[in-house]
Amino acid sequence: MGESFVIGMDLGGTNLRVAAVGADGGVAELFREQTLAREGPEPVIERIVSALARVSASVTASGGFVRGVVLGAPGVISSRDGTVVASPNLPGWRDVPLRDRVAAAIGLPVLLENDANAAAFGEYWRGAGAGCESMVLLTLGTGVGGGLVLGGELWRGADGMAGEIGHMTVEPGGRTCRCGNAGCLETYASATGIADRYRELSGVEEAVSAEEIHRRAHEGDANARQSYREAGRSLGLAFASLVNLLNPERIIVGGGVLPAWDFFMPAAEHEMRRRAFAAPAARVRLAPAALGDLAGVTGAAGLLWRQLAPDGKTNN
Amino acid sequence: MGESFVIGMDLGGTNLRVAAVGADGGVAELFREQTLAREGPEPVIERIVSALARVSASVTASGGFVRGVVLGAPGVISSRDGTVVASPNLPGWRDVPLRDRVAAAIGLPVLLENDANAAAFGEYWRGAGAGCESMVLLTLGTGVGGGLVLGGELWRGADGMAGEIGHMTVEPGGRTCRCGNAGCLETYASATGIADRYRELSGVEEAVSAEEIHRRAHEGDANARQSYREAGRSLGLAFASLVNLLNPERIIVGGGVLPAWDFFMPAAEHEMRRRAFAAPAARVRLAPAALGDLAGVTGAAGLLWRQLAPDGKTNN
Repeated sequence: MGESFVIGMDLGGTNLRVAAVGADGGVAELFREQTLAREGPEPVIERIVSALARVSASVTASGGFVRGVVLGAPGVISSRDGTVVASPNLPGWRDVPLRDRVAAAIGLPVLLENDANAAAFGEYWRGAGAGCESMVLLTLGTGVGGGLVLGGELWRGADGMAGEIGHMTVEPGGRTCRCGNAGCLETYASATGIADRYRELSGVEEAVSAEEIHRRAHEGDANARQSYREAGRSLGLAFASLVNLLNPERIIVGGGVLPAWDFFMPAAEHEMRRRAFAAPAARVRLAPAALGDLAGVTGAAGLLWRQLAPDGKTNN
Repeated sequence: MGESFVIGMDLGGTNLRVAAVGADGGVAELFREQTLAREGPEPVIERIVSALARVSASVTASGGFVRGVVLGAPGVISSRDGTVVASPNLPGWRDVPLRDRVAAAIGLPVLLENDANAAAFGEYWRGAGAGCESMVLLTLGTGVGGGLVLGGELWRGADGMAGEIGHMTVEPGGRTCRCGNAGCLETYASATGIADRYRELSGVEEAVSAEEIHRRAHEGDANARQSYREAGRSLGLAFASLVNLLNPERIIVGGGVLPAWDFFMPAAEHEMRRRAFAAPAARVRLAPAALGDLAGVTGAAGLLWRQLAPDGKTNN
């Protein structure tokens, strides 16, 4: 019998990724296409099923064996019921029984997980969290997402809604967030927040991309550098509260803003150390995410791999 | 054979409490005396051993049986090593092997736990957290302490230092905290913080006790009421971050400020709902602690009771 794989899926509002993942976390087949979420649930489910069938067929054609499928999807997910309860990034999705729909179509065991949780588990299992038992992942992109692994287990919360680290309040009277709150971490430390601040500081009207701001910071643009420093300070504020509250071993930062690490992380670390208790602040390691945009598919698959391998709990 | 008990201890900087606790959480023998912490570790350890011996003898004299002892102590505790690593409230305690010292003296199985964790576990096991699997306890006293129960287990953090909810930052540029940070929840929502604010608002110089401020609030004193409202707003800010981060079933509030619930909790709840995501905010129940100053001894004993009773994980 050939090598075994679990197929992991990472469904986003923009991209759909499907990969065959080995027990060591290695990605053997990667298929990627646009989600075209605006078309609503049915066409997206068809694309998911056909992508899964395609990757599954590739595995089989190479003599491999597919043990099961784990779907990562954005929004409020009930892992127990296998449903997408609601999802801001997937128009029209409400109480969609995605797990059972997919299982019926492909005839393999299927699990469903929140996409940010899957990414956090991926970094824990085979990424920057390997070897630790407690970590927080923050993904700095258009928004700020995240996930918690505590004692080697995803902490999903009472209803699967834990890990909204981007919506911790860091400035009570601060910027209005799209969630309705004021001063959420996301309004400062997301790519969007950094770009907003850059435009404010430099007085430009037109949109400037995150990549462009990063380039300008490299070239010495003082406003670009200050935008990152301020984002770093807000991150450090959140880190300090996370450290005092959870005493985690690692805080891992990923997402589209990650390449600018050197521009925001010194300020974040400084702010964290200034505010948090010395001992847990000395203990925590701040680390860049290691899996890039494969964290979701890797972690999704890892959740099933750990169930399949009874000794798979530790990730050392 | 008579009824079985576990002896729980709650060691504070001021008071030492020792009680025999039944499997149902009932307190059968309660002994309380002053800690006299300023005398240093040795006299305090002697008082602990003699209090434990006294309660143990009472149990035995009534025909009961002592299954073991659990010590709750303040500061940085290593449950694994059984040591008090350091403790701001216990002068001179550094790397004290309290568990083994006590075990050698009394000849019973002994566990050691952080006191705030023990109190959180007590409320979870037989108090306001009974029937839930995830809760946050905040104790509003001289400071603001707390503990986390997630998935039916204490979350202690990587080094036993988790749960410092009083040192989440709620106002980045706010009041200086004794921990060195600015704007910690503790500086606003502790009895001390409320009294400080009351003196500020009313322009009085002399110390006013928490009880007196509570009495004045009852009589309609606008400054007293505003002090509680502002404390409530700060609490609500922390609740919102906790709800978005952890999605817990309950947030439980105890401590000396608890009797003033009606003066601070409406503002806290309002602020939480204004800031947190609607779904986890609707799910969380804000509840007053049920065990008063017996939470520590009850929870300490409960930690061993749960080990003794294999079906004791759930607290329903």
